[in-house]
Amino acid sequence: MKNIMIIGLGLIGSSIALGIKRDHPEVKIYGVDQEKTLDYALKNDIIDEKSALGAVNQMDVVFLATPLDSALELIQSLSELVFDHPILITDTSSTKVEILAQAKALLTQPLVTFVGGHPMAGSHKSGVHAADVNLFENAYYVLSQENETLKTLLSGLHAKFIIVDAKEHDQVTAQVSHFPHIIASSLIQQSNHYAKNHPLVNSLAAGGFRDMTRIAETNSSMWTPILLSNPKAIIQRIESFKAQLDGVSKMISQKDEKGINNFFDSGKKMRQRMEILEGRGAIPNFYDLYLSVPDEKGIVLRVLALLQDISITNIKIYEENREDIHGQLQISFKNEADLQRAKALISIATDFKIGE
Amino acid sequence: MKNIMIIGLGLIGSSIALGIKRDHPEVKIYGVDQEKTLDYALKNDIIDEKSALGAVNQMDVVFLATPLDSALELIQSLSELVFDHPILITDTSSTKVEILAQAKALLTQPLVTFVGGHPMAGSHKSGVHAADVNLFENAYYVLSQENETLKTLLSGLHAKFIIVDAKEHDQVTAQVSHFPHIIASSLIQQSNHYAKNHPLVNSLAAGGFRDMTRIAETNSSMWTPILLSNPKAIIQRIESFKAQLDGVSKMISQKDEKGINNFFDSGKKMRQRMEILEGRGAIPNFYDLYLSVPDEKGIVLRVLALLQDISITNIKIYEENREDIHGQLQISFKNEADLQRAKALISIATDFKIGE
Repeated sequence: MKNIMIIGLGLIGSSIALGIKRDHPEVKIYGVDQEKTLDYALKNDIIDEKSALGAVNQMDVVFLATPLDSALELIQSLSELVFDHPILITDTSSTKVEILAQAKALLTQPLVTFVGGHPMAGSHKSGVHAADVNLFENAYYVLSQENETLKTLLSGLHAKFIIVDAKEHDQVTAQVSHFPHIIASSLIQQSNHYAKNHPLVNSLAAGGFRDMTRIAETNSSMWTPILLSNPKAIIQRIESFKAQLDGVSKMISQKDEKGINNFFDSGKKMRQRMEILEGRGAIPNFYDLYLSVPDEKGIVLRVLALLQDISITNIKIYEENREDIHGQLQISFKNEADLQRAKALISIATDFKIGE
Repeated sequence: MKNIMIIGLGLIGSSIALGIKRDHPEVKIYGVDQEKTLDYALKNDIIDEKSALGAVNQMDVVFLATPLDSALELIQSLSELVFDHPILITDTSSTKVEILAQAKALLTQPLVTFVGGHPMAGSHKSGVHAADVNLFENAYYVLSQENETLKTLLSGLHAKFIIVDAKEHDQVTAQVSHFPHIIASSLIQQSNHYAKNHPLVNSLAAGGFRDMTRIAETNSSMWTPILLSNPKAIIQRIESFKAQLDGVSKMISQKDEKGINNFFDSGKKMRQRMEILEGRGAIPNFYDLYLSVPDEKGIVLRVLALLQDISITNIKIYEENREDIHGQLQISFKNEADLQRAKALISIATDFKIGE
């Protein structure tokens, strides 16, 4: 593995490039994208050389790090080339059934191996400027089949590789990702429509509504192909959710107090169980310190000064929208050891109450 | 207005007590709750005297700051007393139609005035220990009718009073609050059920899923009465949402790329418009500073040291779950003036890029 081509130097492609370089400075990375993007990537040592699709036959590994529809087209183009040496092709798109079917149908030359990939990390930022060698740290990286070559090449990403059957992948992501995006956008659409006759909707929406609709601020050019690529699983989730809502509706109209209590209580327990899967889950903020702090100015500064040698990933000050910084701080660390160091430091230096 | 009784010294009742005392130290606040709660409230100057329902005839104003079902029962109890002087009774519950109907039917003595109230603020904390004089700062406080006495009494809450017809209130909160709680719990229930045959659901759920289900960690003893008190509006929201989902389902099965693009794009625009309603909306984090900071340890500390004389309500470090603190900081302030001061300070003292 000496020559690696990355087609598409967005957030994902360029972060993969940096991750490969971390453990394998000996490989040469060729980038394919718009000229402006390539200029930036070359100048910032994300790639070693600008390239173009025509050079693909000199490559050992090719990453299709584009939106799904472009990746499908790229497989078509690649299938029209004749390869004279073994080549490994992989993608990074969010559904796996369609692209594997495309690869199986078209990439039939014996020298070509296709492995589906889905690195499950993201950022609110996009594009080559957002390239981040740590983007995939502890994130799941789904592969459609075992492939040691690829795992070795990608070791510097510090991701957690997991082999998942394509169909299972698409069903699971329909539930935890694709359908939630539909819910968020649908709730916004519904509220916006309702606001025409009930304008207070725009005023009285609060924090819960904001959090539930955050992922509605999404990129249609990424998400439309995902929905179209996974119709069966998504429509099944929609139908199952409608049945779930009918159940709630029925409990409400039958004044089934016990049933509604149980609906909320069991939902709460289920969610808490999901978050207990901390070390294994894809939900970030695994290592959280909850700290009750006094109602004093500069208190966050004091806490951060104490913890200045420990990497912090997030600080949340509860009682937001209030006059003073007080109440509870949630400080997130990158691992258990750092959390424990922080707890020890806080216990020694302060009398702040550490929560569970 | 000299004697005020607050029945129910939870988060809401005890924070109202503190808010009244801020502007009106002359009034005497009587608390009604469990003995342990009253002890704490008295010791911490939240109330001036422990009391009991029997003393209600000596009061000028009575707050029913209990869950909805208890408030309905309290109205029944109060209606059985004979008042010999004018008394103002108000509540704090999350629906307004049912309690106003109860009050209208039962509180028929000419000396009794009932005004429905809904202070729209909350916290992840609950109970008298969480009492916070700033809890309602800039939050909407819905009243079912104009009442200057009440607004004057509550001036120290620094809330935004708004008169909303009870039916309209219940319809709007069904959309922005009650139904979203049903969605969150339903999504958890659905995912948990699906996980029985697709265990990866528990692993691959990520940040978007977490945010959408946060409000599923709710208190059934508060939420069940709300749902049962607002059945018509909530069931209507459920039916309308099912129709919305059917529309998406249809676009997916018809491979309507343009329609799905438009669904996501318009949803994104609608949400951005909602957040533009900053100064007026109930969504907090109105005054946000976005700061691109270098990838250096201690950078958050440096920024907070610069801003130490300005009240900060929240700090979010993007690129969470990453090794180093870097990328973008989102720092939230309590008003425009503080945001502008912070911007000026940052511009003078650093070369960090300030985002929009």
